[in-house]
Amino acid sequence: MAPLIEIGTLPGEPSGPRMHTDLPGPKSKAAAAELDALFDARAVQVVADYESSCGNYLVDVDGNIMLDLYAQIASIPVGYNNAGLKAAASSPAMISSLINRPATGNFPQHDWAAILQSGMMRVAPKGMTQVFTAVSGADANELAFKAAFMWKCQKRRGDYHAEFSTLESSSVMENQSPGSPHLSILSFKKGFHGRSLGALSATRSKSIHKLDVPAFDWPQAPFPSLRYPLEQYEKENRQHEQDCIRATERLLVEWHTPIAAIIIEPIQSEGGDNHASPNFFRELRAITRKHEVLMIVDEVQTGVGATGKFWAHEHWDLQDPPDMVTFSKKAQAAGYFFGNPHLRPNLPYRQFNTWMGDPARALLFKAIIDELEKGDLVRNTAATGDYLFGRLEKMAKLYPNHMANLRGRGQGTFIAWDSPQRDLLIKLARKEGVCLGGSGQQAIRLRPMLIFRRQHADIFITVLEKVLRSINLVQV
Amino acid sequence: MAPLIEIGTLPGEPSGPRMHTDLPGPKSKAAAAELDALFDARAVQVVADYESSCGNYLVDVDGNIMLDLYAQIASIPVGYNNAGLKAAASSPAMISSLINRPATGNFPQHDWAAILQSGMMRVAPKGMTQVFTAVSGADANELAFKAAFMWKCQKRRGDYHAEFSTLESSSVMENQSPGSPHLSILSFKKGFHGRSLGALSATRSKSIHKLDVPAFDWPQAPFPSLRYPLEQYEKENRQHEQDCIRATERLLVEWHTPIAAIIIEPIQSEGGDNHASPNFFRELRAITRKHEVLMIVDEVQTGVGATGKFWAHEHWDLQDPPDMVTFSKKAQAAGYFFGNPHLRPNLPYRQFNTWMGDPARALLFKAIIDELEKGDLVRNTAATGDYLFGRLEKMAKLYPNHMANLRGRGQGTFIAWDSPQRDLLIKLARKEGVCLGGSGQQAIRLRPMLIFRRQHADIFITVLEKVLRSINLVQV
Repeated sequence: MAPLIEIGTLPGEPSGPRMHTDLPGPKSKAAAAELDALFDARAVQVVADYESSCGNYLVDVDGNIMLDLYAQIASIPVGYNNAGLKAAASSPAMISSLINRPATGNFPQHDWAAILQSGMMRVAPKGMTQVFTAVSGADANELAFKAAFMWKCQKRRGDYHAEFSTLESSSVMENQSPGSPHLSILSFKKGFHGRSLGALSATRSKSIHKLDVPAFDWPQAPFPSLRYPLEQYEKENRQHEQDCIRATERLLVEWHTPIAAIIIEPIQSEGGDNHASPNFFRELRAITRKHEVLMIVDEVQTGVGATGKFWAHEHWDLQDPPDMVTFSKKAQAAGYFFGNPHLRPNLPYRQFNTWMGDPARALLFKAIIDELEKGDLVRNTAATGDYLFGRLEKMAKLYPNHMANLRGRGQGTFIAWDSPQRDLLIKLARKEGVCLGGSGQQAIRLRPMLIFRRQHADIFITVLEKVLRSINLVQV
Repeated sequence: MAPLIEIGTLPGEPSGPRMHTDLPGPKSKAAAAELDALFDARAVQVVADYESSCGNYLVDVDGNIMLDLYAQIASIPVGYNNAGLKAAASSPAMISSLINRPATGNFPQHDWAAILQSGMMRVAPKGMTQVFTAVSGADANELAFKAAFMWKCQKRRGDYHAEFSTLESSSVMENQSPGSPHLSILSFKKGFHGRSLGALSATRSKSIHKLDVPAFDWPQAPFPSLRYPLEQYEKENRQHEQDCIRATERLLVEWHTPIAAIIIEPIQSEGGDNHASPNFFRELRAITRKHEVLMIVDEVQTGVGATGKFWAHEHWDLQDPPDMVTFSKKAQAAGYFFGNPHLRPNLPYRQFNTWMGDPARALLFKAIIDELEKGDLVRNTAATGDYLFGRLEKMAKLYPNHMANLRGRGQGTFIAWDSPQRDLLIKLARKEGVCLGGSGQQAIRLRPMLIFRRQHADIFITVLEKVLRSINLVQV
């Protein structure tokens, strides 16, 4: 392999953060207040000036320039105002896709197969030959759930082409079984899979995400809670993961309704950046196979390169691929990949909706893939991540009270640590021009773009050290 | 009011349909087969050539030119390759929105308030001062459901700002009440509200849409089944609607779980184009108000002008507006409008997700609104609809066996009738170059765009007459 070319500042990028105001600045505050009259703006952090933003740098309406390691909740892949994406976005094909949005299941555009083939199918995970396109991560997950439920019921009927019974066809109109069956999706404690009612029933991140919304009575299994550093707790962690596998298997067998599928994130990305070993996931695959339960891997946040491989589950070295892999966020498109032709329901129009995704976004994903290849950006992310992890490791030794459980080694820039003063740390870092995000109760999660390089890591580390030093001083 | 200017053929439009092949033609068949290897293409009707399509005319890859009265399942508002939309789609603002897609709740773009204010809020229904943006009709409906559930629970707590109990916060993580409450959404028989798990629990259109998917145990009320012609059955219909209102009220009072909201379409647009009188909807509003249940009007298919008013529920002359109105399809954007500030949950991040809609699509909706105003197209649709209805009425007298229950008088071009040989009729019309769609068991639903004019209606009527004559001949 050719060595990675370490370039300096990316074309047009500022040389570093530059802060003019506290955050949010006066113009951000005024714009958010204006917005709040018609659109809930209570969660607004800053109001952005995207036209002025560039590469890894987010610019706000007060002219503050921030190095962005949060990237729109992990969803900007190749930087603000990327030139390749700009060219794709102004192409005649994009304009036509935007203004002539098709009912893709009925009247697909002439080049839909070509867009998929030369785009998202080019990066389809091993074993996945088909895709169903969607409009968001939650939509992708719910469509995968539906495919699993239909598969399960078809299996029960014993024949893929079996007809529905009269009772099924009548009871379903009353939302009663057998037409509306009592089936479950198993998810994992602290997992996040979206916020629509079906997805939310699998989401177990925080109570605030779920309160007051009716949910399906589905089971949750324990996700490993590893102890760090991993080298030190190898034996305990292995035992603990075994316990989680056994608990999961018990649920697969004993839960009061049949489980059609499990859904799991390779790294629990909202629930606190919780990792598990490749072996844990291989054993999960084995028990789902053993009990004829599908395995859906939710790569909405981990997918598209951030872990140093295109899909995070490639780190597991699975011999037997998952049944479905869902994606969204950095793909700027959404959907689920699958390989088993029986995951296509037995009749058309069962898995269907008006738009079935968005060709404009599929075109953009294709342009993103082109950019990733051109810049060898997944490999860049692996290399930058290794460098960054090394520097963070040193920092964690200096400031152990503020950097516990550093994790994500070998996982590209998908790095996190715990800090009891997490929210203060994020606030101080933003003041210094570095935009960070949290996950779970006390994790800092790094979610830079795939154009994040050594020099950006250095800037980040300098700011982080300054912030940690100042927190430490206050405490002394 | 100025008289409507009846223009001839729209700029660039063909003078009429031109068919070169049977449908699907050989190129459509080949393209669909190629697509089917990676994307379920079993519902493909033709593969389209959108670049060659223009105005009311859809062109397929075989060069067939069809007058399109189905419009991508009622979702193309102002014609294929509309010049105004093309300009909007190639603007720098659109390109930036496409390639710098924000997490809108956290980092909205500088002009987000302006885009909403000068766009979708300009057409917000009476009484609606706020909007929550979404990515599809199903997403919009589920978000509205969540707003209703949170509102209901907050009311129960007696104080909008009441804190959650420890039991609520713990039980919700197990998907159990009280944190995950037993609450319902009431919908109507034959209603359609989308296909994600929550929306699908309210959908009651056809068993094929619902089979094998778990559903919430929610109630369905009878939707009026009016007899036609309305003049003849006025008394019976009035009585029947009263019965439906009483049945609905009984469910509101007696259903085994509290009902947070009802959801209803102004015209049941997938379930067979079922209409009810303005009085029916006014009474529904009254009983929902009486029992403190929210009223969600699903305008996903009826909204944006097709009924001759911007929102179909404007036909009802409600003094007390609905609580929420959802939209998608012809808006090319999605979301729900609301007026009551308490429909904003008491805390930020409860009603939230990564993208919260799509600024690119919001910009497009703004351009659509501009086009509608510029061409006075909602009024055009009302006038063209009246003309079309008159011609169809005459036709129905000539072919009563194939055109029963003609409906949609005074509802713009949102017109339908029943035909026992519906599918054959659609097939024959397509052969003659008119693209029609069905709804429910035997309805033909007309869903032309808002640029559909008298001369297009004339072409359609000529084809329809030819088709009806040929079906009649076969039967003789």
